[in-house]
Amino acid sequence: MTRPGVLWLDPVETTGHIRAMPRPGLREELLSAGLATFHERGFNATSVQDITEAAGAPKGSFYNHFESKEALAAEAVRKYAERGRARFALLREEKLPPLRRLRKYFESLIQAVVSAGFTHGCLLGNFGAELSSQSPLVRKRVGEAFAGWTDALADVISEAQKAGDVSGGVPAKALAEFVLHSWEGALVRARVEQDRGPLDTFLKVTFSRILV
Amino acid sequence: MTRPGVLWLDPVETTGHIRAMPRPGLREELLSAGLATFHERGFNATSVQDITEAAGAPKGSFYNHFESKEALAAEAVRKYAERGRARFALLREEKLPPLRRLRKYFESLIQAVVSAGFTHGCLLGNFGAELSSQSPLVRKRVGEAFAGWTDALADVISEAQKAGDVSGGVPAKALAEFVLHSWEGALVRARVEQDRGPLDTFLKVTFSRILV
Repeated sequence: MTRPGVLWLDPVETTGHIRAMPRPGLREELLSAGLATFHERGFNATSVQDITEAAGAPKGSFYNHFESKEALAAEAVRKYAERGRARFALLREEKLPPLRRLRKYFESLIQAVVSAGFTHGCLLGNFGAELSSQSPLVRKRVGEAFAGWTDALADVISEAQKAGDVSGGVPAKALAEFVLHSWEGALVRARVEQDRGPLDTFLKVTFSRILV
Repeated sequence: MTRPGVLWLDPVETTGHIRAMPRPGLREELLSAGLATFHERGFNATSVQDITEAAGAPKGSFYNHFESKEALAAEAVRKYAERGRARFALLREEKLPPLRRLRKYFESLIQAVVSAGFTHGCLLGNFGAELSSQSPLVRKRVGEAFAGWTDALADVISEAQKAGDVSGGVPAKALAEFVLHSWEGALVRARVEQDRGPLDTFLKVTFSRILV
């Protein structure tokens, strides 16, 4: 689907001239399309044209909104993290004990991965593997997103430690990092195997050996 | 460095004709160069020309030896796994107890990652993240390599369970898979952070919570 550019009355410069203006919301559309395409194919297999086509936008419009494919990828990481935070609500259902919440959270992630047929993986892990040596900018954004995710898991684990459901010895933050990395590795293996086995093993070992 | 093709007396067909023959060993050189380049940059950021240039071979020579870049990538996974097996000797030092061997093994991997400045990651994890949805062939080879690695770790963990150093409840193979995935995830995070912290946390939690 290609939507042609539209002529708009310039709303800022009050010269009254009519000129071609970027489509309102096109930046967001390019960002969403870029995120979806990067998530599906990775960074280097995605061209700027793939993104503009996915957004139904003229190719030339891309650089009105993003300096480079890399700049869009960095923004896509932020947007992905923002979307991921929606699921954090499961971590905060205060009527449930912390470990039960954490388990529900990961069960919900597993369900999403299985429903999608193991097609996408985690954008953070994918970009971390593909771009850590290529893009300091994307690497930085991925690091920020991982840090935010770690904090959210650490809060719940810390609660569980205070409730006596998880032993001390290893700080909540280190346990959260470890669990997150285990999840990321299990997800890659699940995609390789096209099978949920690695994700089920993740749940089993996490809740029978680590968070005890 | 470009080395021109060399004229060889055909050693197999005993016609005595002189004709242009592939450089002996060129296939191996292309494979090694491909492995190194894929490991450094990933699959989609590497062109056939990058590989022939790295091997100092004429571009046209590539397709004498490999059907496609994907075919070389699949072979590169096998070669990578073969090289990785050299380190398995550490897992078999029978004078040491099994968990001590396993710890030495991962310490040695960490040392290699740190010495290389967090530049490369694990080819299996990288390809698993980048290509699982793109190349069934590479995915299959990565799966085989992960399976062999899992078996090697499971053997040691099983020994440790028999010696009473690791409790039962979870089978050795599931523990091995979990530990391997945790390693893979920690390695991606270490590359994102350019810091060994995630690898040290991996060691700490693995040997204080999982393999106990």
